[in-house]
Amino acid sequence: MAKHEKISEAVVRRLPIYLRYLSYLQQNEVTTVSSQQMGKNLDVNPAQIRKDLATFGDFGKKGIGYDVNYLVEKIRQILKLTEEVRVALVGAGHLGHAISNYNAYLKDNMRIAAIFDNDPGKLGKEVAGIPIQPMDELAKTIPDKQIKLAIITVPASAAQSVCDLLTQAGIKGILNFAPTTIRANKDVRIHYADVTSNLQSLAYYLT
Amino acid sequence: MAKHEKISEAVVRRLPIYLRYLSYLQQNEVTTVSSQQMGKNLDVNPAQIRKDLATFGDFGKKGIGYDVNYLVEKIRQILKLTEEVRVALVGAGHLGHAISNYNAYLKDNMRIAAIFDNDPGKLGKEVAGIPIQPMDELAKTIPDKQIKLAIITVPASAAQSVCDLLTQAGIKGILNFAPTTIRANKDVRIHYADVTSNLQSLAYYLT
Repeated sequence: MAKHEKISEAVVRRLPIYLRYLSYLQQNEVTTVSSQQMGKNLDVNPAQIRKDLATFGDFGKKGIGYDVNYLVEKIRQILKLTEEVRVALVGAGHLGHAISNYNAYLKDNMRIAAIFDNDPGKLGKEVAGIPIQPMDELAKTIPDKQIKLAIITVPASAAQSVCDLLTQAGIKGILNFAPTTIRANKDVRIHYADVTSNLQSLAYYLT
Repeated sequence: MAKHEKISEAVVRRLPIYLRYLSYLQQNEVTTVSSQQMGKNLDVNPAQIRKDLATFGDFGKKGIGYDVNYLVEKIRQILKLTEEVRVALVGAGHLGHAISNYNAYLKDNMRIAAIFDNDPGKLGKEVAGIPIQPMDELAKTIPDKQIKLAIITVPASAAQSVCDLLTQAGIKGILNFAPTTIRANKDVRIHYADVTSNLQSLAYYLT
């Protein structure tokens, strides 16, 4: 497998989309799929799909296509989903609640394992069966539960201090829904998921 | 300005991040910024920033840096934010509510202009000051209000039919929060914002 430094973020962002479609095929007992068929269903150029998958090795067979089970397994390996990945969520407001309730959809060995909020009124309550813990338990709970990823759904003004607490506790990847820029050490990966940024990217494609 | 077909999606996704940081500088009356300073604050390689911005023209001056006001204006032009971009939201559940309440954050001429839901119990209610309309008003409201982008926050099972209604009404870009693949004509851009895909991309960077 190639080193991840050499693989573009765009490819890494497409792999989960491929995985979801391939898992759907798997559930429907489809065993083989061509890049043409994948491209048509995912609105991605088939040549792009072949190129993306070739980055990681020689998966396909000319004239036959990809073995669905094999490709699912490979992409899961590449995305490091072969072991359970635990996620913390900080900020149990509307957005935090909505995301936690999506927990059921977090497939492929990924689950929200802890929720934190600084509102004393929320402590002891549960979201999607997960208790809301106070912020001062974060530093202990995250290493104890071996949580590596975190979702930030606090207001923009609190996002940086939450980011600092998370990285000090050992978090290596953050999905930031707060509409603000946050900073962390180089070994921490930050992805922005806020709606404004996403919509602005989309606006670019309007003609 | 270069044709957008030639600009990679990765660049288009970084531009809103640059814009947000530059707007922050602007609010703080900072007039000049170097790619080094931007890179440090945004955790992006300064060479990457220079390369991204050079795609659109010669913005920077060696040894001086970028003129903040000029760069903000240029990026807003590139992202087509010089005119108001109106957005529809379909699905006024938890996630839809949370996103609508973020409406206040939708800066740069972008706002949620209509909300639709198929639950009769929700009709007539408002979210963030916007009335929830029945689905059968979608086909008329979207062209009437010149809405071009849409956010889908319905369950996965309803996402494709909602996507079909939206594109028939003239929507050209969709931000899909539903955890499923959706399809549309080639002239419609679909971005996936669901949490699972985002977290799976992040998991890749775990070492």
